[in-house]
Amino acid sequence: MTASLPTTALQLRSLISADGVLELSLHDVPVPTPADDEVLIRVEATPINPSDIGNLFGAADLATARVSGSAERPVVRAHVPPALMKAMAGRLGQSMPAGNEGAGTVVAAGASAAAQALLGRRVAAIGGAMYAQYRAVKLDACLPLPAGASAAQGASCFVNPLTALGMVETMKREGHAALVHTAAASNLGQMLNRICLKDGIGLVNIVRKPEQVALLRGQGAQQVCDMSAPDFEDRLTDALAATGATIGFDATGGGRLGGQILACMEAALLRKSTEYNRYGTNTLKQVYLYGSLDVGPTEFRRNFGMAWAMGGWLLFPFLGRLGAERAQALKQRVADELTTTFASHYSHEVSLPGMLGADAVAAYGRRATGQKFLVRP
Amino acid sequence: MTASLPTTALQLRSLISADGVLELSLHDVPVPTPADDEVLIRVEATPINPSDIGNLFGAADLATARVSGSAERPVVRAHVPPALMKAMAGRLGQSMPAGNEGAGTVVAAGASAAAQALLGRRVAAIGGAMYAQYRAVKLDACLPLPAGASAAQGASCFVNPLTALGMVETMKREGHAALVHTAAASNLGQMLNRICLKDGIGLVNIVRKPEQVALLRGQGAQQVCDMSAPDFEDRLTDALAATGATIGFDATGGGRLGGQILACMEAALLRKSTEYNRYGTNTLKQVYLYGSLDVGPTEFRRNFGMAWAMGGWLLFPFLGRLGAERAQALKQRVADELTTTFASHYSHEVSLPGMLGADAVAAYGRRATGQKFLVRP
Repeated sequence: MTASLPTTALQLRSLISADGVLELSLHDVPVPTPADDEVLIRVEATPINPSDIGNLFGAADLATARVSGSAERPVVRAHVPPALMKAMAGRLGQSMPAGNEGAGTVVAAGASAAAQALLGRRVAAIGGAMYAQYRAVKLDACLPLPAGASAAQGASCFVNPLTALGMVETMKREGHAALVHTAAASNLGQMLNRICLKDGIGLVNIVRKPEQVALLRGQGAQQVCDMSAPDFEDRLTDALAATGATIGFDATGGGRLGGQILACMEAALLRKSTEYNRYGTNTLKQVYLYGSLDVGPTEFRRNFGMAWAMGGWLLFPFLGRLGAERAQALKQRVADELTTTFASHYSHEVSLPGMLGADAVAAYGRRATGQKFLVRP
Repeated sequence: MTASLPTTALQLRSLISADGVLELSLHDVPVPTPADDEVLIRVEATPINPSDIGNLFGAADLATARVSGSAERPVVRAHVPPALMKAMAGRLGQSMPAGNEGAGTVVAAGASAAAQALLGRRVAAIGGAMYAQYRAVKLDACLPLPAGASAAQGASCFVNPLTALGMVETMKREGHAALVHTAAASNLGQMLNRICLKDGIGLVNIVRKPEQVALLRGQGAQQVCDMSAPDFEDRLTDALAATGATIGFDATGGGRLGGQILACMEAALLRKSTEYNRYGTNTLKQVYLYGSLDVGPTEFRRNFGMAWAMGGWLLFPFLGRLGAERAQALKQRVADELTTTFASHYSHEVSLPGMLGADAVAAYGRRATGQKFLVRP
């Protein structure tokens, strides 16, 4: 089986030097031999997620990006602002692979029976370094795709689907009845909307533009609030009162949105309250900041009583707390509903060299809703 | 027993009218007859805590306070800024008593054996309306004082001691090894320092002035960080690294301090970390905002990875979650160590009418560390 494999293949690397220059380039690296509990995947499709962009570019300023080298071996260079170099200290001088997830065909397998059983199967995988032509991964980082599923359909099996399911799971485990999501018109947001519609869970979708309201309503969403509307806070309070949502997941991170959500939750609760309490209602209002689309500071006025919490939310530590059995159940649901609930949509397809083109970098670097790249190594 | 009691006695009331005028005044109210599970306390000492000031004045601007009436029946009036009236909606037109806690002698008791057993005893009590000459309270809101303890010694048995013990209890229950406290030179802060020294718990004290560093060091504190020092963040990081503190309790609420504590916790953890992770360390860093000495917005830069949480912390909901048995154990410790660990210090003593004097209002209204009033009804 391994006789037909090349000895080396392409892998994308990201390097930040001590003098603040970021460099993305393609390298010929040995095609690995899988260990007993591993399989070797020929990577056929891998998405560019916001979390990948953070790994690829670190704190570099994309406005300074320049492409050199050949069409087959382009090199992207950009500069990290000196003020942000401190945060990069941990990765300076390390040539790092990237690409959280992807899908492809198992072309070699380790000695274990479980590994051998996947030979020839199409699988999705998580675990980094997927911006490459070949990648050896452990069995527990693989998800066998249903028969007939394409690599493109399976490429985004993990990050967005498990994040959306993880939000619903967090809501249930922490005792809330419904939830709020921001940047709700994203691939992730549309997926969460489909989960909530299917499972009968109340969801308040917060979007940034009127056309995104139409998009989500067209997909059956019942509560959609447009931040650009002058009566946004009143409409959000109405939606929170209607659903009873007391937990929110905010992709923007910076600015005032997290605090606005807490304040509107408290206002919605006070509509039903008859007794004055200067410390506010006793109902815990929770907002998790899971992204950082707005990299500026977070600010809030604490006009929501004392029963509130804000915090970071990150998928993999959450899955760890969840335990292997429940995490596996979530993954199985993704496989079962791959082409319906968990369908992803891509606006562009590129090769590995194409990923390092000036236009491509400028496009996915904006992290704009509706601009989603799929890499075909 | 009740034959010697007056039929009416003084009680302080706070009222905010719909047109934004706050009024504090003294009223003759009937001396209550205790129910079966209640005792009637002749209130002999009751403190003015920051939480009491919030109840007394609401959102009124103390700079507008004017005193009228007689020396025996003064009336304080102040104006609530129109922008803050919305937050007062729940209490408009309600004449409210105030005073969270206090101590005195049980002068009448309900029919139950447990109530009768307290007759003649000196007790501390919690439950509001203590700015009065007599107050009937339920038995479970009482704490019998040790023999020989004065009312002044017992007046602050609940709010500060249980808050300080509650912080340590929260630290343990949430799996942290040591803690941080701001406004650490306050009565509460000195108490927390004594608890931590006695129990061998690491404590990082954050104060605002060099003389407060000297005060706490004089009381044996090992880690004291002065916010006014130019190298505050470096020294705080050192102290956090030395103690391993990953939970903090912040009395200021507004401004950047909560976020600074989280950032310095992360910096202290990174000193021991060898592996780069762009999401930061996996150790949860927690800051609770339990006060609002700075009423401005809270702001932070999220420069502390993804494993962080911030939230409100309030004593009575916490005691509720703790359960009756453990809460009682904390109360018993307060009684046992009343004149040592839990000793309070007062800078001023006033009568009920004296509490409504212009100088007194101006002094305790500043909420300054070291200015603490005891009321003698």
